[in-house]
Amino acid sequence: MKPIHTTSILLAGLLVGLPAAAQFQTAETAIKYRQGAFSVMAAHFSRIAMMAQGIQPFDAKLVIENAELVAEMAKLPFTAFGPGTDKGLPTRAKAEVWKEPVKFKTASDRMIADVAKLEVAAKSGNFDAVKAAVGTVGQSCKACHDEFRGQKSAD
Amino acid sequence: MKPIHTTSILLAGLLVGLPAAAQFQTAETAIKYRQGAFSVMAAHFSRIAMMAQGIQPFDAKLVIENAELVAEMAKLPFTAFGPGTDKGLPTRAKAEVWKEPVKFKTASDRMIADVAKLEVAAKSGNFDAVKAAVGTVGQSCKACHDEFRGQKSAD
Repeated sequence: MKPIHTTSILLAGLLVGLPAAAQFQTAETAIKYRQGAFSVMAAHFSRIAMMAQGIQPFDAKLVIENAELVAEMAKLPFTAFGPGTDKGLPTRAKAEVWKEPVKFKTASDRMIADVAKLEVAAKSGNFDAVKAAVGTVGQSCKACHDEFRGQKSAD
Repeated sequence: MKPIHTTSILLAGLLVGLPAAAQFQTAETAIKYRQGAFSVMAAHFSRIAMMAQGIQPFDAKLVIENAELVAEMAKLPFTAFGPGTDKGLPTRAKAEVWKEPVKFKTASDRMIADVAKLEVAAKSGNFDAVKAAVGTVGQSCKACHDEFRGQKSAD
């Protein structure tokens, strides 16, 4: 098959030596991806949290938009903690991520379930429901960070 | 209003000195956010491109899933190039982003329109349509990078 010229140029770096089933070409790509997904998720979660705390005015439409994005983003980073992605770029992921995969999966599934509930609360338009759901998501985040996130590594 | 305890702990760092209408609390947060959104978008675009180039087998369902994510992500980074976000973290955004805002908006709108067309092509299930749309998106990416993305800055 004749490759598309412009795309070939863009992707040339990515495609060298690519294993057939790889989701990520390098550990660096995986680490960037998961950190990126967490950053985007955190930004949108914080917008809801600021409304839940009364720091920003409550805007039901904005809460829904942000909650949908948070729920969408929440599923992404956990695809990027594959074997060998514990180094390659500075990362705060602790060795426990790979040593305790079942525990890590439980913690991440809990967060994904809690942000799904936040989306439901958002769609109810009820301030108190959103506020409660934000608190629950905050606890999920913290529980996983306490266990699996440490100081940034040197590489 | 009584703040939620757990969320307060999590967000305390973010909320200090927050201007009322700010989307991002600091330039650092904005830069992390836009780089994160671009990383996630690039990863999902590259999965479609690999199928379009015949490097991975064409899977119509996967193409749709990835195209939806690309289209969703494409809208995000351009909210994070506000005034003062030209430094704060290493960034490849050139001064032209802020010097030529109309040109930058045109370039980003072109990319957003092209990924929307990629989503339509994906939903058609037609390989040739997807391949053509991938080429067009690749050109949009490259055009904007040529003009507005340089080497990584030191801060």
